[in-house]
Formats: sequence, C-alpha cells, structure tokens
Amino acid sequence: MIAHDSCAAQVKAWQGRMEHALSVRLPAADEVPTRLHAAMRYSVLSGGQRVRPLLLFGAARALGLDETQVEAAACAIEFAHAYSRVHDDLPAIDDDDLRHGRPSCHRAYDEGTAVLVGDALQSLAFQLLASDAALPAAPGVRLRLIGLLAEAIGASGLAGGQAIDVATQGERVSLAEIDAMHGRRTVALMRASVLMAAACAPRVAPRLHEALAAFAAALALALQIQQELLDGAADARYSAALGPAASRERVRRLHAEALEALQPLGPAADPLRGLAQWLLAPGD
Amino acid sequence: MIAHDSCAAQVKAWQGRMEHALSVRLPAADEVPTRLHAAMRYSVLSGGQRVRPLLLFGAARALGLDETQVEAAACAIEFAHAYSRVHDDLPAIDDDDLRHGRPSCHRAYDEGTAVLVGDALQSLAFQLLASDAALPAAPGVRLRLIGLLAEAIGASGLAGGQAIDVATQGERVSLAEIDAMHGRRTVALMRASVLMAAACAPRVAPRLHEALAAFAAALALALQIQQELLDGAADARYSAALGPAASRERVRRLHAEALEALQPLGPAADPLRGLAQWLLAPGD
Repeated sequence: MIAHDSCAAQVKAWQGRMEHALSVRLPAADEVPTRLHAAMRYSVLSGGQRVRPLLLFGAARALGLDETQVEAAACAIEFAHAYSRVHDDLPAIDDDDLRHGRPSCHRAYDEGTAVLVGDALQSLAFQLLASDAALPAAPGVRLRLIGLLAEAIGASGLAGGQAIDVATQGERVSLAEIDAMHGRRTVALMRASVLMAAACAPRVAPRLHEALAAFAAALALALQIQQELLDGAADARYSAALGPAASRERVRRLHAEALEALQPLGPAADPLRGLAQWLLAPGD
Repeated sequence: MIAHDSCAAQVKAWQGRMEHALSVRLPAADEVPTRLHAAMRYSVLSGGQRVRPLLLFGAARALGLDETQVEAAACAIEFAHAYSRVHDDLPAIDDDDLRHGRPSCHRAYDEGTAVLVGDALQSLAFQLLASDAALPAAPGVRLRLIGLLAEAIGASGLAGGQAIDVATQGERVSLAEIDAMHGRRTVALMRASVLMAAACAPRVAPRLHEALAAFAAALALALQIQQELLDGAADARYSAALGPAASRERVRRLHAEALEALQPLGPAADPLRGLAQWLLAPGD
C-alpha cells in the first residue's frame, strides 16, 4: 500500500511544475495578436488536473528519468489536450458553455477565436517537440515523440474518436462500440503520454512499453467511466449501456487491471500506482 | 524569356503528381470514421492550383533535387494549407459557402465535421514529416521541416494572421498593417514551402536560403493582391487601401522584386521564374 499523503504531495508538486512550464511556453498576452494569445493562455491555464502530464511524469519516474527531461513533452501533451477541449466545446460539436467552472473559450472570447486557439495550440505542441531546448536533444527521440503525438490526435486517434462520438449521438451503441470510440477519443492520448516518457528513456525493453501502454489504456477507460458517474448524466455512454452499479464495478476491475499491468516494472512503478489510486479513489 | 508553353506543361505535370501523392496519403473513405475521412478527401482533393507544392517543387529543382525527394513535404504543406482553408471558411471566421466552385466543407458536410477535418489534416501534415518513408531519412532534416511548418502555421504565422484579420474586420488599416497581417496569413506558408525544399538539399548557402525566402515573400504578396483584383470585392484589404490601378502596379513591382531576388541562383532558378510568370500572368 502506498501512503496516500505522499501521493497527494507528489501530484501537487507535479501540477505546480506544469503550471509554470506551460505558462512560460505560451505566447505573451501583450504581444500581437493579443486576443489570440490571451485566449490561448486562458484555455490552457484554466485549471484541470493535468492527468496526461501526471501520467507522463509517473512513467518517467518508473523508468528512472527526472521530470526536467520530459517537462517539454508533458507540455506538448497538455497543449494537444487543451486544443481538443477547446474545439470539442464548440457549439457545432459538444456545445459546452463551461469548462472547469469557467466559461469555455468560445464563450469567454468568440467562436472564431476558439477555432484559431485550438489550431495554434496544436502547432505549438509539435513545435515544442521539434525544438524545445529542454528536451533530450537526440533528433531520433524527438521524431518518435512527434510521431506518437500525431498518431494519438489525428484521424486514427482523438479527432477520429470525436468524429465517431458525434456521428453516433442519440444512437444506441454496444459496449464494444463505446470502448472502441473511447479507445481513440480518450485512451489514445493517455497511452501516448506514457509511451512518450518511454521514448525519452534509453533502452526500454518492449515488454515495459507494453506494460505502460496496458496500464494507461485500463486507467484511461476507468477514468472515463468514473467521470460519467460523477457527472451523473443519464445520457452518458457508459451509464446508458451499463447502469451505475455495473459502471462502478467496471471501474474497480479496470483499476485492478491497470495495477496488474504494472507488475513487470516492479517497485519503480510505485509513483504510477499511487497516481492511479489518487485519480480513482481520491477520498480513500 | 522562358517559353510559356513549357512552363504550363511543367506546372501541369507537377499538379498531376500532387493529386496522386495527396490521394494515397489521405485515409480511405471506406474506413471508420468514414464521414471524417470522406470529408478530409473532399476538402483536399477539390481542385485548386496547389501553389505551395508548385513553389516547393520549383525551389527543389533550383537546388538540384528531384521531385520524388520532396513530394512528401509538398503533401504536408498542402494538407496544412487545406486545413487552414476549411477552418477559415467556417461561419465563425470568413463564412464562405464555396471553395473552388463547390460547397465548402462545412456546407457539404457539417460544421463539427469541418472543425475535425482541419484538426486531423494538421496532425497528418506533421505525421508525414515525422515518418513518411519517401522523405530523405535524416532525422535532423525531418525536424527542420517540422519546425518550419509549425512556425509557419502557428500563432506567429497563419493562425496569428487569421486572428489579426478577424480582429480588424471593418476597420480602416494602413498598408503597412495589411502587409504585416498577410506576412503571417499568406506569406509565411509560401516562404516555408521554398525553405522546406532548401532544408531537403545538402549544404545550401545561407544567401540562397535568403534568396528563396525573398522570392517567395514578394510572390506571395503579389498573388494575394492579384487575387483580390480578380475577386473584385470592394471590401478586400488591398483594394480598399490602394485602389485597382495602384494594386496592379504593386503586383508588377512585386513580380520584378521576386525575379530580382532569384539572381543568386542563376539559370537553375528558371523553373521558379517560369512558375512566377505562369501564376501572375497566365494569359501572357
């Protein structure tokens, strides 16, 4: 059992590191185009748990890396996540007026700005991976990171999953179809987070890559189902297909699967174990 | 004087090469998510002159490269251009119902799909540069291409220029301000096109980089002004600031500047000279 207090302290330290790392990599709000820059900063620096950077830091620790070596990659992941949230919130997609309790980007600014904010955040993510001075400098590592991110957010990842979600709104879909949709929409970027940490580490055995990917995939689905339970929306995908009791049971099973997947990493993966518990059972 | 017929034949050959190169790199329309994939193919394979790939091919020839060596980079540039057009056409930005005489993406499909099409095309552009097997394999070259593209389309390039354009709609702005806006919105990606060709060539002297960049910058502005003259819209930026006669004179001057910039490249730059003439004076 990992002490919950030390996990919480670690998470808080990682979150604090991210706020600073993101802020210094965003364009200044007093430089032209000021409205776009201000809206980019508003959209990224608006709270949230930073789950993907936390996963990346946890995986880095499990592989013996220091946070400083992966901080720029964590920022790229978070910029990509933020871009997808800004676009998903648009009236033409999920039509959400709020994000983390504040007006979503298109409500705080306007729809045109929100489209451009997402576009510019995606470019910035790739720009960091190509040239951020704080990343390990080997060009091959950078290319691997760029490939992982592009695959995770493109038509075969996030954008494709979102398209399937929109196309099947109001339809009754099977559990397997929901899993497949979230495999792209939710799992792909979390999986990329741990694999990007692995790409930054020297000589990671394939079975450890697989262990990290399996951990992230199980945890990502568990977090999605738990989020739906917390939101309490009856039209949420898993709630509609499973009901609340079976949803809770599936979260427990996926949590166990995630921990099981970490076995090959041994005690080095304790930061990831603690993170999974902090994310899934914050009150325990 | 370059024979116009041979230029036209060269342009046609390059355009034909691009249609095939783009088509094979787009996701298949019969694979899930089919609607997103179909809309991506519709948006990219909908005609247009392919000006940026033509510039890239012309610069490649001027530097002694074969088209096969830069074809993937030309596709990345065109995917980035196509993404920006799909997003710019959205009701919240330019609100254009037509593109190349056909319904724009959000009219042929829907707004949500158009947002995701643009997002996925941007990711695909970076994915090609990171991993397309047809590119020269040196990782350092790929990173330079990714950096050039990210800079050209991000907040300091295309997205930023579009934001300035939207923010100043209806305002009376100076010629210098219009030039600065189009420096990002129009020039940045054409400049990146020739610089990406240069990045693929071994040992290009800095003054030749500068020559190509200056050529592309002058030609890009000339094309923008000429397009406004052809569209005949009285509210177009240059038409409003300059009037038609001074606009035509400025196109002529920029064309001369573009040719002047090519001097250091000698006769090798004839394909670029022919291309500029074909683009600016198609009937001559």
